[in-house]
Amino acid sequence: MLKTAAKAGELANRFRRVRATSAELASGLSPEDQVVQSMPDASPVKWHLAHTTWFFETFLLIPNLPGYRPFDPAFGYLFNSYYEAVGARHPRPRRGLVTRPGVAEVAAYRDHVDAAMLTLLERADAERLAPLVTLGLAHEEQHQELILMDLLHLFSCNPVAPAYRPYRPALRGAAHEGRWIAVDGGIVAVGHAGEGFAFDNEGPRHEVLLRPFRLFSRLVTNGEWRAFVEDGGYRNPALWLSDGWATVNAEGWEAPGYWRRGEDGGWREFTLLGDHPLDEDAPVCHVGFYEADAFARWAGKRLPTEAEWETAAAGLSPTGNTLGSGLLRPVAAVAGDGLVQMFGDVWEWTASAYSGYPGFRPATGAVGEYNGKFMANQYVLRGGCCATPDGHARATYRNFFYPHQRWMFSGVRLAEDA
Amino acid sequence: MLKTAAKAGELANRFRRVRATSAELASGLSPEDQVVQSMPDASPVKWHLAHTTWFFETFLLIPNLPGYRPFDPAFGYLFNSYYEAVGARHPRPRRGLVTRPGVAEVAAYRDHVDAAMLTLLERADAERLAPLVTLGLAHEEQHQELILMDLLHLFSCNPVAPAYRPYRPALRGAAHEGRWIAVDGGIVAVGHAGEGFAFDNEGPRHEVLLRPFRLFSRLVTNGEWRAFVEDGGYRNPALWLSDGWATVNAEGWEAPGYWRRGEDGGWREFTLLGDHPLDEDAPVCHVGFYEADAFARWAGKRLPTEAEWETAAAGLSPTGNTLGSGLLRPVAAVAGDGLVQMFGDVWEWTASAYSGYPGFRPATGAVGEYNGKFMANQYVLRGGCCATPDGHARATYRNFFYPHQRWMFSGVRLAEDA
Amino acid sequence: MLKTAAKAGELANRFRRVRATSAELASGLSPEDQVVQSMPDASPVKWHLAHTTWFFETFLLIPNLPGYRPFDPAFGYLFNSYYEAVGARHPRPRRGLVTRPGVAEVAAYRDHVDAAMLTLLERADAERLAPLVTLGLAHEEQHQELILMDLLHLFSCNPVAPAYRPYRPALRGAAHEGRWIAVDGGIVAVGHAGEGFAFDNEGPRHEVLLRPFRLFSRLVTNGEWRAFVEDGGYRNPALWLSDGWATVNAEGWEAPGYWRRGEDGGWREFTLLGDHPLDEDAPVCHVGFYEADAFARWAGKRLPTEAEWETAAAGLSPTGNTLGSGLLRPVAAVAGDGLVQMFGDVWEWTASAYSGYPGFRPATGAVGEYNGKFMANQYVLRGGCCATPDGHARATYRNFFYPHQRWMFSGVRLAEDA
Amino acid sequence: MLKTAAKAGELANRFRRVRATSAELASGLSPEDQVVQSMPDASPVKWHLAHTTWFFETFLLIPNLPGYRPFDPAFGYLFNSYYEAVGARHPRPRRGLVTRPGVAEVAAYRDHVDAAMLTLLERADAERLAPLVTLGLAHEEQHQELILMDLLHLFSCNPVAPAYRPYRPALRGAAHEGRWIAVDGGIVAVGHAGEGFAFDNEGPRHEVLLRPFRLFSRLVTNGEWRAFVEDGGYRNPALWLSDGWATVNAEGWEAPGYWRRGEDGGWREFTLLGDHPLDEDAPVCHVGFYEADAFARWAGKRLPTEAEWETAAAGLSPTGNTLGSGLLRPVAAVAGDGLVQMFGDVWEWTASAYSGYPGFRPATGAVGEYNGKFMANQYVLRGGCCATPDGHARATYRNFFYPHQRWMFSGVRLAEDA
Repeated sequence: MLKTAAKAGELANRFRRVRATSAELASGLSPEDQVVQSMPDASPVKWHLAHTTWFFETFLLIPNLPGYRPFDPAFGYLFNSYYEAVGARHPRPRRGLVTRPGVAEVAAYRDHVDAAMLTLLERADAERLAPLVTLGLAHEEQHQELILMDLLHLFSCNPVAPAYRPYRPALRGAAHEGRWIAVDGGIVAVGHAGEGFAFDNEGPRHEVLLRPFRLFSRLVTNGEWRAFVEDGGYRNPALWLSDGWATVNAEGWEAPGYWRRGEDGGWREFTLLGDHPLDEDAPVCHVGFYEADAFARWAGKRLPTEAEWETAAAGLSPTGNTLGSGLLRPVAAVAGDGLVQMFGDVWEWTASAYSGYPGFRPATGAVGEYNGKFMANQYVLRGGCCATPDGHARATYRNFFYPHQRWMFSGVRLAEDA
Repeated sequence: MLKTAAKAGELANRFRRVRATSAELASGLSPEDQVVQSMPDASPVKWHLAHTTWFFETFLLIPNLPGYRPFDPAFGYLFNSYYEAVGARHPRPRRGLVTRPGVAEVAAYRDHVDAAMLTLLERADAERLAPLVTLGLAHEEQHQELILMDLLHLFSCNPVAPAYRPYRPALRGAAHEGRWIAVDGGIVAVGHAGEGFAFDNEGPRHEVLLRPFRLFSRLVTNGEWRAFVEDGGYRNPALWLSDGWATVNAEGWEAPGYWRRGEDGGWREFTLLGDHPLDEDAPVCHVGFYEADAFARWAGKRLPTEAEWETAAAGLSPTGNTLGSGLLRPVAAVAGDGLVQMFGDVWEWTASAYSGYPGFRPATGAVGEYNGKFMANQYVLRGGCCATPDGHARATYRNFFYPHQRWMFSGVRLAEDA
Repeated sequence: MLKTAAKAGELANRFRRVRATSAELASGLSPEDQVVQSMPDASPVKWHLAHTTWFFETFLLIPNLPGYRPFDPAFGYLFNSYYEAVGARHPRPRRGLVTRPGVAEVAAYRDHVDAAMLTLLERADAERLAPLVTLGLAHEEQHQELILMDLLHLFSCNPVAPAYRPYRPALRGAAHEGRWIAVDGGIVAVGHAGEGFAFDNEGPRHEVLLRPFRLFSRLVTNGEWRAFVEDGGYRNPALWLSDGWATVNAEGWEAPGYWRRGEDGGWREFTLLGDHPLDEDAPVCHVGFYEADAFARWAGKRLPTEAEWETAAAGLSPTGNTLGSGLLRPVAAVAGDGLVQMFGDVWEWTASAYSGYPGFRPATGAVGEYNGKFMANQYVLRGGCCATPDGHARATYRNFFYPHQRWMFSGVRLAEDA
Repeated sequence: MLKTAAKAGELANRFRRVRATSAELASGLSPEDQVVQSMPDASPVKWHLAHTTWFFETFLLIPNLPGYRPFDPAFGYLFNSYYEAVGARHPRPRRGLVTRPGVAEVAAYRDHVDAAMLTLLERADAERLAPLVTLGLAHEEQHQELILMDLLHLFSCNPVAPAYRPYRPALRGAAHEGRWIAVDGGIVAVGHAGEGFAFDNEGPRHEVLLRPFRLFSRLVTNGEWRAFVEDGGYRNPALWLSDGWATVNAEGWEAPGYWRRGEDGGWREFTLLGDHPLDEDAPVCHVGFYEADAFARWAGKRLPTEAEWETAAAGLSPTGNTLGSGLLRPVAAVAGDGLVQMFGDVWEWTASAYSGYPGFRPATGAVGEYNGKFMANQYVLRGGCCATPDGHARATYRNFFYPHQRWMFSGVRLAEDA
């Protein structure tokens, strides 16, 4: 019983911390910054703050807290994202048209729901709700990363190139040379099992047959990518998947997402810290799957499969340059004997199309719409990035995006057959 | 000399008043309300406030006030609208992505420019600038109307249906029956000439040959339009121009722009004052040219030409239910012997394609891009609306929109051959 | 009575001649050439041959010839063009998907209808039908011109650049210098009245007030247009209407429709006679209204209004380089004292938006959908072209196209104020 | 030596047979039928006939037959499909605009190339070319299937619903009940190895770890699919992948590709044999991956992976209702103890995204563009269909299409975990 109370207190504390982080991320942003939607793939900051709150209200408070009064009945429609089972919802590309409720009212919504949640978490049977609360917090952490991705995209559309936070030097040197790390093949188990939290798409744990392979010890750097650009990488169809080549031409791509030519002709990069000269030692960022695949072909290598990546990552501590570092950008790997930068810095594209593991069944109820319905046309990324909350990612974690998308913090680690 | 000083003081006062009205229109709006762009045809309120300021900075202060320091060099790019001669500009559909500068910084921009303008207007040679200042103020008045149109469109996209201002009853009764007012034909002069301000597209004054005609004494009402709807007006291709019928089908139109079905099946209208039951006596509003033309055909009548309208309006006082009434919506005509509602309430579609008058030459310089370059594919509207600043419109005033557009306050007055 | 029989015989003869011309135009074309639709604005040759036949079957034979058996009931759906009153129709952009009925079956359809029509025209009361038969023949003549326009567009999409007919030299020299021809102003009557056939949109005849003006004696030449191109005409926004400039950029236009750069860098023109070096003396062809308007502005002139054009053309013989010349292209004006090239060569853009004349009422019944419903967003062209059947055009004839269109044989004659 | 001559003779015979089949498929089609392109995904019959010929001319004759004169230099541009390495090519969506060369000229092209190929195949060193000739023939067989798919789509766009061939009854009865066939798991080898021809994407042969599973003995029938339709399958978002649900709504799908409602409300199906009442016993056809996946979810089952399918098919004879049956449609399985309909009838969607096997390297040179560059966003189908040339498919054969596509002969076989 004492143990339960302690656990409940722990959960409440964790709830407070995660919720406070979201608010902290929005601090310093004007109401204007928080309301605008810069493209259909992105959402306004204000929407993220409200939607994560809606999750707790809809799935925790309304079914479980007797007498709970929803903050505003309209919010159920406005802040549902894609849960068909919960009813109609405001269309995604129109999220940016909702100027009211405003930032202040969303803050009040958060306060209202937080207070009720803390009441709920104090109840005797709170432990029963722990899995769903934990899911809600993991969900909010994902939106914390989305807040930063979406804000970076919004600011990138602004000719005055605003900085979200002031630039802090990383006090690091040149990227180390790197080397190939061999991993044995055989029958290995991948996927999540056991006690800790994981999303439904991380399981069931199952065996796969791997051939021996090698991973490069560090991420591909901006300097290496510049060589690809200068070698005509974006102009040579032989390097590209057919759909990728069509995308390159339709979009007029000639470099990663936020690279820009400076007035002196040199490359610069737009970041959450504003516009800066390209850091050649830092990992390349904001490249899509098509680009990652073309780069690997140009380099005579390939992308790892997700099973390879997970096998190589299995014994490592899931820590690195994540949100807590405050750097808000990937930085150079200056040292390290074995695999470095596996967690944090940038999400690493794998060669694996996103699909359900053998025996996969979505969670039941509306939260089952979380992952399974997106299992087509996307590719798996692994490892987390500089905008991922500390402790959010793990070796079995499966992130996924469409192959043309590149507004997230995504990069490349090369693999080769042994 | 005294006279000149008086005139200069008058101009400065007028400058202060017009500029204050813009700020007044934005009062009560949140920063969120002011930054979002709801469609490519519309602009954010903040953009209107900045763009009208940019006009004075670019065309008055920089060329004429020695030592004037532009508020921010980036604003020239951000807040130019369509003046090709003045240089590159931020693309119109992306105006809503500029969250910084924010509302507060735009207010500071306005203060900076206003102070400089008032200094400029105190100079001995200020009279020389009067025509351009007057043009700038007329331009700002046009954007005042656009602020209200664009805001109404934005709010109409919000499921919570916000009201811009509280509803005030008009204290009026049923629309009077109306009657046909005959106007003689012959050679008549139309277009602007003489002292007062007019836009370049209002001249040259020239003669045209008119046949005798009749105008209906008041505007078409919502109740009359409802009969058209219920008679299948939106489903009968025989009533429509071919391009209009294609638009009706592509857009799924079945009623004017902001009509909505209430829960009881009755028609309601979304307005700047929120969502209300349809006022059957008020003039129909938010109809495009295609609809106006189809309605007239259904009624066995036609739209007036702009020369007819102007001839009929020539002797009337250019006053009515305009912005100063504070009603913010068209209201029923309850009395009046002759032509009523000619000015204010809603802009009246004419049958005239918008083109240059005989001998028309655009003003020289960048301000010459104001009207002439839009003389294709649009139709002329006359008379002003409930969002037009008092004194802005006049009998010769030529407003113009594309035939499918209907987010402005536009309605219909019928005509027939004598 | 004799007179009536003579008239009926004359009509039958005319029917035979017009119908034979359509077949003659298709001779030498393969079935492949006749079935493909190269863009939504164009139709397959086979469709034109069938649709013109459908007109006679639908409006003449079915209502008037007792016992007439429609050739195929499906054809009513397949070959209706835009007559909403006659029932559902195959969508225009999908006309090219109908490979069956094929060319041979359409020929049989024509024979079937022609035989029945000649039977009908022999009946005692045939004179009663003369107006509708005449309309049907005028309609077929319009489609004869469309056959050539649409075929030229189709062939222009083919990398092997086929020629419709072999090139025959025009045996003409350099274009003459040309001069300005003054025309008096005043109240003039325009529009059709009287006995001869005219389309409904040519009337009612009515008076307009004209100011004195001048027309240039000949058409603008390719050589003059080349100077416009080389002066950066297609790159200077100050010359263009706003919608025109948007079109130039969206389409990447840098010259008239079928101009192409040869391997030596010189301009060539694709024509019904294949690909040839640009004839600098010939009239420019395949320019849209936006281009015509921009050219006139560049030249310091303007386009004539349709009333001006008609007034100037009133006394002239409506003959020139039309279909009967067999040249199939506009050719240089080498001599002539007054206005030359007014009829034939190329349709001449006017400054007049296409709308109904005062008092215009469409013909009753389905044939009333012929002209009136297109009276929006288009501009009037006058005079006929090298693909217009001889005798088809006249001074009051009003052709109309959208301002961006240029696949027809369209060119420019300049005007200026007196 | 004798053996080589025999082999060369065999290859020449096979060349003749395959080439003759293409011509046979086009017999009975008019030139009109052969030139039109009904959508960007499809190509004209004439283009298929020319493109397959171009393959032999480009990759066999020009490099290997001294003195070979290309039939027409323009054909290299016109009839290249997607080989970037071979130079520029006519854009795919514009293939239907090329009316010249026509059907007769393409036949002459085929004759010219066939004669030269037979000369080439008689040369002493012809055996050296056998792999490339064999690839060319396999390529032509693929286009034979495409001819039928594309023609069916074209005819489906024609309101008169033409039949490609007369309907011949299959003389079969009701579909048998079917049962679940268990397959053991374990480490199995999949992919092609050894002597016979296979496409590069079928290798390398490699081991995978399978879990025990069951396949249903026959294909899903039209009757079973009708139950899905009637159960609201196309209106229930819970059954669909998110991208699939978006497709259903965007396209307005409510049944398989060529199902249509008859006048009595019953379902009919448009086929190569014209329009017929739906055969409830025949396998469902013209469903995309999204539909296959949704159906499986509705049925409480899943799609097989390609490794599962291949393992189950490994011992079976790769024969069935393929092109040689002349039925031109999938037909009911009326008997059979084990797995039936594995080859022929319809291609079977698998759950496997199309990607390269471990160690996959594309063939070198331009023919290496054949398969590898399409390894993104598509799904693998297995087994062949009623339009696949006899002997073309095999257990390791990997067909692939985008998940929304359904104009091919594609259906569903269900799987489940053991």
